[in-house]
Amino acid sequence: MKRRKVIGLAGAGVVGAATAGTVAWRMADDPVAPAAPAPDRIEFYGERQAGIITPAQDRLHFVAFDVITKDRDALIDMLQSWTAAAARMTAGKEAGALGAVGGVPEAPPEDTGEALGLPAADLTITIGFGPSLFDSRFGLRAKKPAALADLPKFPGDTLDPGISGGDLCIQACANDPQVAVHAVRNLARIGMGVVSVRWSQLGFGRTSSTSTSQATPRNLFGFKDGTANLKAEEATLLDEHLWVHAGDGPDWMAGGSYMVTRKIRMLIETWDRTSLLEQETIVGRDKGEGAPLSSKAEFDEPDFAVEGDDGEPLIAQDAHVRLAHPTENNGVRMLRRGYNFVDGSDGLGRLNAGLFFISYQRDPHKQFVPVQTKLARLDQMNEYIRHVSSGLFACPPGLAAADDYWGRSLFG
Amino acid sequence: MKRRKVIGLAGAGVVGAATAGTVAWRMADDPVAPAAPAPDRIEFYGERQAGIITPAQDRLHFVAFDVITKDRDALIDMLQSWTAAAARMTAGKEAGALGAVGGVPEAPPEDTGEALGLPAADLTITIGFGPSLFDSRFGLRAKKPAALADLPKFPGDTLDPGISGGDLCIQACANDPQVAVHAVRNLARIGMGVVSVRWSQLGFGRTSSTSTSQATPRNLFGFKDGTANLKAEEATLLDEHLWVHAGDGPDWMAGGSYMVTRKIRMLIETWDRTSLLEQETIVGRDKGEGAPLSSKAEFDEPDFAVEGDDGEPLIAQDAHVRLAHPTENNGVRMLRRGYNFVDGSDGLGRLNAGLFFISYQRDPHKQFVPVQTKLARLDQMNEYIRHVSSGLFACPPGLAAADDYWGRSLFG
Repeated sequence: MKRRKVIGLAGAGVVGAATAGTVAWRMADDPVAPAAPAPDRIEFYGERQAGIITPAQDRLHFVAFDVITKDRDALIDMLQSWTAAAARMTAGKEAGALGAVGGVPEAPPEDTGEALGLPAADLTITIGFGPSLFDSRFGLRAKKPAALADLPKFPGDTLDPGISGGDLCIQACANDPQVAVHAVRNLARIGMGVVSVRWSQLGFGRTSSTSTSQATPRNLFGFKDGTANLKAEEATLLDEHLWVHAGDGPDWMAGGSYMVTRKIRMLIETWDRTSLLEQETIVGRDKGEGAPLSSKAEFDEPDFAVEGDDGEPLIAQDAHVRLAHPTENNGVRMLRRGYNFVDGSDGLGRLNAGLFFISYQRDPHKQFVPVQTKLARLDQMNEYIRHVSSGLFACPPGLAAADDYWGRSLFG
Repeated sequence: MKRRKVIGLAGAGVVGAATAGTVAWRMADDPVAPAAPAPDRIEFYGERQAGIITPAQDRLHFVAFDVITKDRDALIDMLQSWTAAAARMTAGKEAGALGAVGGVPEAPPEDTGEALGLPAADLTITIGFGPSLFDSRFGLRAKKPAALADLPKFPGDTLDPGISGGDLCIQACANDPQVAVHAVRNLARIGMGVVSVRWSQLGFGRTSSTSTSQATPRNLFGFKDGTANLKAEEATLLDEHLWVHAGDGPDWMAGGSYMVTRKIRMLIETWDRTSLLEQETIVGRDKGEGAPLSSKAEFDEPDFAVEGDDGEPLIAQDAHVRLAHPTENNGVRMLRRGYNFVDGSDGLGRLNAGLFFISYQRDPHKQFVPVQTKLARLDQMNEYIRHVSSGLFACPPGLAAADDYWGRSLFG
């Protein structure tokens, strides 16, 4: 049967006609999970959601959604469909059938196709629930964790509400950006009529290591970033600072983590006119090696007491590394997982570039908030940055098995 | 000498103090070109500019600049500095010194640092001169090629002038996006006071092959793109369709090529609600294999005469592949080198995504213009796309040696 003939039949409403020529698709009804992950495949199921302590992949597509229905069952249905699609895509498969769905040639494909032939690329898809989801629409008010209370306004914030917040978020990370974009785009497609894209952000380069196996990358100030980050190998610290415990709040979040996002525009043209010594003084580390100014090697602990010949501390009182360091913040730690971005230019002759900050923690109000409050007040770096977007999301624990779905512990 | 002490000296205006701790920098005064390129290094010098027939790298940062000075010598100086920096960066080095420049600690670094430790990543940096550069400011009016006459307005164009045009452009392509961003950012830094960023575009995934060694990638419609593209191995075709000949116009462009850019927003949510058969009919190829609907394999030549049982051609009269195919356009060919983009969302619940189209050709008015005129009038795909930005640039031939510079043939 020729293709145009098939289309002709389709136009006449005849169903059941097989499409020729689509044999190359990975079949949508393959079983999802073989026993062992391929080298570039991150297991979707497990005690924790993947994409948190997973060694940070190189590329990000992040999206926040508004729920546009008040129909609780429709939302749950979508979350079930999302879960199935996420399990498939992280396994290197398509989101669904690419041919004529159910033999109906008029139906759109259940995958958009642009990742066909690409590897799994370490794709992780991580879901979070925003504070606004817990309003009156879906009966979730009693289940809202105290830790999900809105973040305060910080000094100097210049947030754009249009690219802040959201009822749901998806963090898709992969080593191939097309794989990450494909994942977000297909979840948006599946969610049509239930959710609407509120805002979305691509990140081209990771700015943190989340494993001791990774080299420390550089942010767009040219400095190594995330040297003192929490790492996947530090189980005791992760238990204390990253994962929500039973008893911390509502049961459905036990084993999960809270995500804070901040889109931080960097005024890189201004920074680039600043001397190296000024840059290093502001950061508190040297630019080449990434060592604290009190020392010589990147992973040396900063010594904030050491003074130079002039009696001034080698790491300034208002240096970023001092203000943000755990020893100066009652031992507070976070797992950072941010990305560099460039969103074209700003119409004023400057690149619209910066850091899309992502952190995970057990309680943002005890971790992100006090540190950011101090930074917003005192950090000399504020002259060169603007916080333009903010997000807070509760990321539930992982899914145990293929019959579980995102949100069951919350909606069940 | 301790770092804070150095800063103290700097503040007091003492020069000549060496900076400690920056030994990790690749030295800025290394000779540029060892004899043989590293595996991930593309030679900067040569008969042609790199980045045209170079096998298309995975990532793009494109930028268009306005010249903001009327000082011809300042512009030439900048082009000389750009050339030196481009030669260094494509060789995997920094743009310039990272330490205290010339021993002056107050001076900003001559490289921004974010590519330190990264490989050359097949970086190419390609320059183009826009039509507006040939106005009265720099005495170039008589040197303007006829081929650089403004493109006509095409039916359906919805161009934003703020992200169109430009006096100069830089196409930076690399297999690591941070390397491409670093290149553009440092050229912008070097150009401060002479040029201003007019617009800029990141592309995350190539949508064309420019070599027979490359697999055909997919665009965000999920289809293979660029199957019938000109390829680096087709020397006779390149000579006829790609490279400007002596006698085609002003001497300074002989051996160069003309670049057309079009930012094409794809309405992917609408596309995703369209049936597979409709999508394939519009494109004229099947989605899985990429074969013309008249045939079975991707690289089969489309046969526009073949009809189905119903007497209709298998490749519709208004299918994209037919409208754009050389045999339907007096043999016209172009070398396409486009990239997929996602620029966040559009505030209306949709991803702001599409194709940043780049083509190179011997004369855009004989190649791009007639094909695009036909597509703009007839292509059924127009329902799903919007052209929002347009650029036209004259890309001069390559530089023969290290004492040559971008624009010497034009300004000399």
